[in-house]
Amino acid sequence: MLVVQKYGGTSVGDTDRIMNVAKRIKTFVDRGDKVVVVVSARSGVTNALIERAKTLNSSPDEREMDMLLSVGEQETIALTAMALHSLGVKAVSRTGAQAGIFTDFAHTRAHITEITGGDIRQCLDDGKVVIVAGFQGVDREGNVTTLGRGGSDLSAIALAAILKADICQIYTDVNGVYTADPRVVKNAKKIPEMSYEELLEMASLGSKVMQARSVEFAQKFNVVFEVRSSFNNEPGTIVKSEAPSLEDVVISGVALDRNQTKVTLSDIPDRPGVAAEIFRELGEAGIVVDMIVQNVGRGGRANMTFTVSKDDASKAEKVLKKTCAELKGGTVSLTGDIAKVSVIGTGMRSHSGVAAKFFKVLADNNINVQVITTSEIKISVGISLEDAEVAANVLHSAFNLDK
Amino acid sequence: MLVVQKYGGTSVGDTDRIMNVAKRIKTFVDRGDKVVVVVSARSGVTNALIERAKTLNSSPDEREMDMLLSVGEQETIALTAMALHSLGVKAVSRTGAQAGIFTDFAHTRAHITEITGGDIRQCLDDGKVVIVAGFQGVDREGNVTTLGRGGSDLSAIALAAILKADICQIYTDVNGVYTADPRVVKNAKKIPEMSYEELLEMASLGSKVMQARSVEFAQKFNVVFEVRSSFNNEPGTIVKSEAPSLEDVVISGVALDRNQTKVTLSDIPDRPGVAAEIFRELGEAGIVVDMIVQNVGRGGRANMTFTVSKDDASKAEKVLKKTCAELKGGTVSLTGDIAKVSVIGTGMRSHSGVAAKFFKVLADNNINVQVITTSEIKISVGISLEDAEVAANVLHSAFNLDK
Repeated sequence: MLVVQKYGGTSVGDTDRIMNVAKRIKTFVDRGDKVVVVVSARSGVTNALIERAKTLNSSPDEREMDMLLSVGEQETIALTAMALHSLGVKAVSRTGAQAGIFTDFAHTRAHITEITGGDIRQCLDDGKVVIVAGFQGVDREGNVTTLGRGGSDLSAIALAAILKADICQIYTDVNGVYTADPRVVKNAKKIPEMSYEELLEMASLGSKVMQARSVEFAQKFNVVFEVRSSFNNEPGTIVKSEAPSLEDVVISGVALDRNQTKVTLSDIPDRPGVAAEIFRELGEAGIVVDMIVQNVGRGGRANMTFTVSKDDASKAEKVLKKTCAELKGGTVSLTGDIAKVSVIGTGMRSHSGVAAKFFKVLADNNINVQVITTSEIKISVGISLEDAEVAANVLHSAFNLDK
Repeated sequence: MLVVQKYGGTSVGDTDRIMNVAKRIKTFVDRGDKVVVVVSARSGVTNALIERAKTLNSSPDEREMDMLLSVGEQETIALTAMALHSLGVKAVSRTGAQAGIFTDFAHTRAHITEITGGDIRQCLDDGKVVIVAGFQGVDREGNVTTLGRGGSDLSAIALAAILKADICQIYTDVNGVYTADPRVVKNAKKIPEMSYEELLEMASLGSKVMQARSVEFAQKFNVVFEVRSSFNNEPGTIVKSEAPSLEDVVISGVALDRNQTKVTLSDIPDRPGVAAEIFRELGEAGIVVDMIVQNVGRGGRANMTFTVSKDDASKAEKVLKKTCAELKGGTVSLTGDIAKVSVIGTGMRSHSGVAAKFFKVLADNNINVQVITTSEIKISVGISLEDAEVAANVLHSAFNLDK
């Protein structure tokens, strides 16, 4: 088997943990697998480098930031290779550039444009484990670039794609993806298998396991990956294309997001293009509008309420005040925080009755629904924060996720 | 003027010092110079990395060691560029590979085979300061290599050569090269100007300012360089080809080496090839024989005494015991430590009477000479350790080095 493994910063946090990672890699080598390993910087290293940079320059140049930050992963690949050598395992390290991870010129948030893999195939044929620096690449002019948040996951998935790996294992500090947040729903269960779309819906709804870009990349190139813990040997959650067997499971998880704020626009001019203008301004400010609650027109004036992430609320208010001034009408107010609870499952496509059951359960528990949004494989509702925990638990039970 | 500057690990030890370096660079930019800067890793960083490596592997692979250690300089170049930006100076960093510093495949002690300079000339023409990572290069297969001890000096001298810089400034924690060690000779003076050969003789005799390889490289490509302090603005010591003006100065310095041990071989077979065999064995063990004291033959047997560095003494004894066994004769003993005092000066070539004066001064002060070695620009004697300090001082005065 050809296995690509990715270890995050916590998994390689110090030399003891690096040695543990090396021992785990050895078990795969011993059973005859070819192994490519992608590692992050040791936890804390990146922040220390950023702090040093900020001491010298309050807004450091992004090219130099990439030059600086990429040393974190470069240290880890060398140390991991040395640890493997001490266990008698042949291994060699490769920077992002050496692994042929080419990107565009967008420093600190580069996109991968091409992966050649460099000489990784040759190294594997020579019986070597190849340790690749995650998070980093190189642009066509030879400058070091970094891939932004979740970059190391993306490096691993992309290498697995180009190498046609049998599986890509994402080692992290959780055991896998759960049917619900175990801190909220006591009897949440680890999901053994799920589809890319389900994980994408889960991730976007607050169960942050992996960045959407990595999952989307895996989906595009059909890379089967497993999210699992680097601190034990339990199998994790396998994520892959929707398989026939997956359809038997109607709902795969319940997601809870308690980080939503309602923004209300009152008395805005009710004419074509106004809504478009409002959402354009928010989009340009980088603010994602989540659920749109109401849009009632009356007497040439309209009200509109929608939710944004709590972190973006004050920024949204500022942007919208400016928009109202331009529109010559309307007032803006933040009208309270709400929770969003969702059920996700590809099985919804072929099973009717999911929505009916969903709303019956909430009604039976006296939970008032303020807003509804749906996709092909998801139903979300906005509810009061006080109802959030009960809602997650009753839905989890009702869809038999604890069985 | 095109100036190449090199700053060592102490000069860039923390962010405050990096900012001071940036301010110094700015004074050159402000007066219209084009500046290329070579920096080392912050002091302590390299040792910390080595320690981490040794925790994982008692004898780390040399390729991986280079991958690991090169991050130290990469961090410094990015931070130095950021510091310059905050002062409003245009600057860009380059790794060894990006600066086109190509080497052979000898990891941890690579030799430079070619320097292209990458796009440094273009960057200078664009008005940018270019910050290059010292100590590191890249082999023809794209592996990171390091240049070994004194590697950053070599990077700077080599870049100065290829860029045809007007001067290469080596910033360090001393003010320049002195006529004698100021800790031994109170009125030692900074030498304003000296030749490559003189510095080479000084360096090999214990006044360790720069590694011989960097000075030899500068000599070969006729790179004028200055050794000066990064902690003040005093002019340092300019080192260049022998100029007519230099000939007026007969002696430029007195060097003292108190780190020599005598090794005596007794009763070795007195036949052709024996001495060659002995020195071959020592050479293969990496031991440099310095002064050969006696070589007396009698009755088919010979005695031989020579000096080696004190650090190599016990290793030399071990090697020679094996050699005596192979030669079927001879005994080895370490016969005490001695000091070596030398006067160096290219002026010796054209001035007679230097040797006569040298030995008269020692005799006048009752200093017994145990051994003599000379080169075209140097006279060295082996004397007792007790006489060392007096000898250095009286020679320093006699040749008017304190004037």
